[in-house]
Amino acid sequence: MTAAKSKILLFGAGAVGAYFCGKLAHAGLADVAVVCRSDYETVKERGYRIAGKDGDFVFRPAGVYRTAAEYRGAADYLFVTSKVLPGIDLPQLIRAAVGPQTVIVLIQNGIDIETDLATAFPGHEIISSIAYIGVTRVAPGEVIHLDGGRLKFGVYPRGVSSHTEQLVRLFTAAGVPVAATAEIMRARWEKLVWNVPFNPISVLTRSDTAQLMADPDMVALLRATMEEVCATAAAAGWAQPATMITEQLEFTRGFKPYKPSMLIDYENGRPMEIEAIIGNVVRTAARLNVPVPHIFSIYAMIKRLNRR
Amino acid sequence: MTAAKSKILLFGAGAVGAYFCGKLAHAGLADVAVVCRSDYETVKERGYRIAGKDGDFVFRPAGVYRTAAEYRGAADYLFVTSKVLPGIDLPQLIRAAVGPQTVIVLIQNGIDIETDLATAFPGHEIISSIAYIGVTRVAPGEVIHLDGGRLKFGVYPRGVSSHTEQLVRLFTAAGVPVAATAEIMRARWEKLVWNVPFNPISVLTRSDTAQLMADPDMVALLRATMEEVCATAAAAGWAQPATMITEQLEFTRGFKPYKPSMLIDYENGRPMEIEAIIGNVVRTAARLNVPVPHIFSIYAMIKRLNRR
Repeated sequence: MTAAKSKILLFGAGAVGAYFCGKLAHAGLADVAVVCRSDYETVKERGYRIAGKDGDFVFRPAGVYRTAAEYRGAADYLFVTSKVLPGIDLPQLIRAAVGPQTVIVLIQNGIDIETDLATAFPGHEIISSIAYIGVTRVAPGEVIHLDGGRLKFGVYPRGVSSHTEQLVRLFTAAGVPVAATAEIMRARWEKLVWNVPFNPISVLTRSDTAQLMADPDMVALLRATMEEVCATAAAAGWAQPATMITEQLEFTRGFKPYKPSMLIDYENGRPMEIEAIIGNVVRTAARLNVPVPHIFSIYAMIKRLNRR
Repeated sequence: MTAAKSKILLFGAGAVGAYFCGKLAHAGLADVAVVCRSDYETVKERGYRIAGKDGDFVFRPAGVYRTAAEYRGAADYLFVTSKVLPGIDLPQLIRAAVGPQTVIVLIQNGIDIETDLATAFPGHEIISSIAYIGVTRVAPGEVIHLDGGRLKFGVYPRGVSSHTEQLVRLFTAAGVPVAATAEIMRARWEKLVWNVPFNPISVLTRSDTAQLMADPDMVALLRATMEEVCATAAAAGWAQPATMITEQLEFTRGFKPYKPSMLIDYENGRPMEIEAIIGNVVRTAARLNVPVPHIFSIYAMIKRLNRR
């Protein structure tokens, strides 16, 4: 460990951000301040209460702010864990907190979610990361950790760095399983192979994973959709292993019935990350001339349902 | 007119059957008995009250029965206007009322809905027909006529006959716009070009026609689905005019906002005619090697939603 603790600002501190950065803070490995809007009062007063399968803990941020502009420190790492939704100018929202040395770390879903930041902050390292976790905010400042809890880091658009290595050391020390990869985009596409079919189809059909896997025609649709994601990934330069689709389907079949996060968002009247997860795949496929009729069918319908 | 009135038995007397056969009975052109289950008590007591855009009338059937076996007449025409749902053995349900001379007349949605009857009653003429009407049962024995009201008749699988001509004369005399066609299957496929996309998509997205037509991606999905229906129809020998898709879309765009019947069924917790309208198209396409990825996506999802 270096002598000085890392300074982290967490922007858009929902369940995912509170869990992971909370682990670092709780272990005394970093000073973590947070920008949060909806839960501001509660978090300011008593921090986050995080309960779950690996034990409960309280995460009291070093500072709690409503906007990035209120933060006066010089963060080593600015973690962004907000949802990826259209019409949100993320660079503008975080700009005030991006100091000369600040590394931006995205823990978000989807693809093509780094491009706005890369354009807005050309001199800054951007670390893209993927969370493998089931975690839910059940009340203001109250987070339940249900499943998983791994992280994967890589420099955007590719490579590793001393910063990714430092993050791996920090999270490892905090007991979070973590890996660095030189090809974070390949890992993003891997996650999309599952997310593109299961998230919107679960919403359109109001079904959990077990209900979807029970019908052979539905499994055929899931597989056809996954094949289109893999074809698009390959055309974009991030081919996936040939066995992946069958592995993901079999894993899902063997797992306990599960509601994808988009279905939980829908049931709770929250906006869904349709463009980051599905729309950007449709647009990538169109740019690369990959036919994706199944994905497009799903996309047009989930987008329409989201407008209701 | 011949001296004797035609004797008609109406099986599965919902809104569509009550409207059309009621017009004949009300005009004194036919003796119409009905087999109805859910509205039996009300209809037995006071007939059907049919209200709507062309004036209100009461249709008092010549007989009201719970099953076809209770009917003791020898019907000239047995009209079948029940819903087309899996697991219903229609030939068995009507067999007792099919006399030696009885012509079977189907007014139902979908394709491949005549095959079971043709197999079960090989010596009988089967007339297949399509209703162009917006009509709803709002309470037991209470029917509202909203829009349209045309019929098209043809012998199954093709041709016209003295019976189709007689039906045209009868309905014309009763004020119902009606036409005979030697290619009723082509007309069935024409209706599917609209029904296959609009019915299930309106349910999956909980949207009326105006909401669907407002989004260019959704219009692209509607068009792609219609193109697959047309390709399947052409492979089956019932090619549609090249202009049809654009015409149907423009007609829908110009029409007042409208909830397809499948959405109304879904909202009222009634079973949807998924197999007759969509599943049979998917199966026809598979048999003829026509790729229908958009239709299949919609089919797998509406089928799953219907199981909830």
